[in-house]
Amino acid sequence: MAMASIVTVGNEILSGYVVNTNTAYLAGKLLETGVCVVSEHTAGDEEEAIIKALRLAADEADLIIVTGGLGPTEDDLTREALARFLETELELDKKLLQKIEGIFRGRGISMSANNKRQAFIPKGATAIANIIGTAAGIRAEWKGKIIFVMPGVPYEMKLMFEKSILPEIKKIQDKKGGVKVIRKINCFGEGESKIAEMLGDLGSRERNPQINYTVDCGTVTIHITTTGRDRKEAEELADKDEKNITKRLGKLIFSKGDLSLEEVVGELLVQKGKTIATAESCTGGLLAKMITDAAGASRYFLQGWVTYSNSAKIKELGVEADIIERNGAISEETAAAMAKGARQKSGADYTIAITGIAGPEGGSEQKPVGLVFISVDSEGGTDTKKFVFRGDRASIRKRAAKTALNLLRLKLQID
Amino acid sequence: MAMASIVTVGNEILSGYVVNTNTAYLAGKLLETGVCVVSEHTAGDEEEAIIKALRLAADEADLIIVTGGLGPTEDDLTREALARFLETELELDKKLLQKIEGIFRGRGISMSANNKRQAFIPKGATAIANIIGTAAGIRAEWKGKIIFVMPGVPYEMKLMFEKSILPEIKKIQDKKGGVKVIRKINCFGEGESKIAEMLGDLGSRERNPQINYTVDCGTVTIHITTTGRDRKEAEELADKDEKNITKRLGKLIFSKGDLSLEEVVGELLVQKGKTIATAESCTGGLLAKMITDAAGASRYFLQGWVTYSNSAKIKELGVEADIIERNGAISEETAAAMAKGARQKSGADYTIAITGIAGPEGGSEQKPVGLVFISVDSEGGTDTKKFVFRGDRASIRKRAAKTALNLLRLKLQID
Repeated sequence: MAMASIVTVGNEILSGYVVNTNTAYLAGKLLETGVCVVSEHTAGDEEEAIIKALRLAADEADLIIVTGGLGPTEDDLTREALARFLETELELDKKLLQKIEGIFRGRGISMSANNKRQAFIPKGATAIANIIGTAAGIRAEWKGKIIFVMPGVPYEMKLMFEKSILPEIKKIQDKKGGVKVIRKINCFGEGESKIAEMLGDLGSRERNPQINYTVDCGTVTIHITTTGRDRKEAEELADKDEKNITKRLGKLIFSKGDLSLEEVVGELLVQKGKTIATAESCTGGLLAKMITDAAGASRYFLQGWVTYSNSAKIKELGVEADIIERNGAISEETAAAMAKGARQKSGADYTIAITGIAGPEGGSEQKPVGLVFISVDSEGGTDTKKFVFRGDRASIRKRAAKTALNLLRLKLQID
Repeated sequence: MAMASIVTVGNEILSGYVVNTNTAYLAGKLLETGVCVVSEHTAGDEEEAIIKALRLAADEADLIIVTGGLGPTEDDLTREALARFLETELELDKKLLQKIEGIFRGRGISMSANNKRQAFIPKGATAIANIIGTAAGIRAEWKGKIIFVMPGVPYEMKLMFEKSILPEIKKIQDKKGGVKVIRKINCFGEGESKIAEMLGDLGSRERNPQINYTVDCGTVTIHITTTGRDRKEAEELADKDEKNITKRLGKLIFSKGDLSLEEVVGELLVQKGKTIATAESCTGGLLAKMITDAAGASRYFLQGWVTYSNSAKIKELGVEADIIERNGAISEETAAAMAKGARQKSGADYTIAITGIAGPEGGSEQKPVGLVFISVDSEGGTDTKKFVFRGDRASIRKRAAKTALNLLRLKLQID
């Protein structure tokens, strides 16, 4: 297997201003490709520190993946450090300069002198195109090792990595041989320890595959990691575990691979030719936002209401003032009336309504922070459920929206 | 100033299963205390790799902060690695064993043999209490350096760090003298390189304070990092730069410190006793979600519409079908009509409407992906602006919502 080391450059990481999500992304992608990540080093915005991190990485791995420090300002020093590490100099890449100038022309603004720095790369290295930003990447070789440098901005980095770097890494890994296969199974509806209990012996550390769990606001993802002499062997072992897990967990599983809960719901709606609308109170638009995160959501998502105030619930969704007065805005009755009203007004096949207390204020002994009612309405009737979610405001809102999507998913799988 | 290096242990980081949030937390806390974090190294669950990372850290810093690898299972090897690094052996800490046994008795379950491993620490080191879990921390000294080892579970780590480790680090830092002061200034409306140009000489690498930038979907945060012999000196230097930057950037600055754009808008609305409503198409609820992320948003946020389909724009917001037919749903005219309609229906003092193409599909030469119209309506009239945002679907949506909030912020600061 090819070995990789990840180098992150930036004071923003060492000062805690920014969480290093790039490493997790890159490590995940490399692992999927079968490349073993042996270490990660973070250096501040200083030439000496960056050079040191490059040396450490080169000492440990064949592939050195660097992010950060390619911006236009004086604290962006990865170019300089890389040149010194390679024992060479920076030179102006005229084609690259033209590209950067073109980007500014396209945006109709003048290029600042700072940006010219971004057209310099070490002698003998090549620029990697950045199709959405001015910071080009750099590919260099050193004593049989390959160094890829990318900007630190996550979406620029991801696009560059997938378009221009991953294909070469795949080829390198194929030549090296030895294969790791990763499968992901995503569940919603039970916690990690309950799911681990249901999988029992499969979780043993002595087995191949290895089973790992990650958890994100109610979603439990099972990672099956298999190693084999070749792809066939590894895939077969993974297949066997995947089937076994699928059987044991049943409806708790909403997808395999990278498909999110909202994408699964979207696919089900498209398959069945059905439409949806939302009526939200405490989640404040988060549910609609999650549904429309998926490209092509306009095929099934008609509209959403964020009826934060009581009068909006009454005026926009036709909830009877009397229902709110008698039961409160946070009640099973109000949730159901919101869902029904939204269906009548939108003409959608399915509607989801959420009303609750996201906190930190507004809770009482009878109606604590985290109390949420979720109602799904369709031709078949109205299902309303009560939940008490734990956590802070952001996680209560996220859990509520995800639980709502999961209720709709289960309904769509039956209907 | 005291120098620290952070060592993270765990395959889950190097495989991308888990994002390393511990480092950002620790780096932030250390920096607040005035300790300079010089590097971060991540090692997998292997003794040799952990020892190597400890050596790197000891080479660079006086304080070595380690997280992870203290669990009860066979892949938790930080204890063994630390003992070998210290050139000593693990020994059973009987008091610690009693504590761990006590935890299991308290939970009413029998202790597994594995957990006994957690009662071993290197000779000469001391255990650090874990009041919510079975993994105790370890404090060790080595050639004048201090090593703190904590469990990797974020909430256990944080509690242990704040209760038992930070007080000692503060004392060490006080003895060392030298103080670091950090200020944050948040801007919106120009890119990083333009802002750096406006700050000119202030960005020089040779100065104290040092100026750094972080960028997040249009928000540029300027970090002023000042070092001084004592707090007074550092604060005075920081004050001077802050004033200077405030003067140079003017209205580009929306806040100082940790206040987000949506919180600033919320504060302005509360100050002025005004209310708001939203009408969104391409952002699909994101703007309403951001506004309601702030606790207490019900004081000024009345309601929101997500009018994804044309018929919803017509029916809910009273946009004339003719306007959409003549100009298209993505047009200045439609945006303005959405904002006006939302104000009429909601009775809010201010309304924001967004319509655009978030992509990846749906663009054309005349109306490319990223084209967004944002309209702010109030008693004073309707302001509609056209933007072309770059990036993927998620960042176009985020930029659109943030730009909308910024337009409202600027309006509120004048009104």
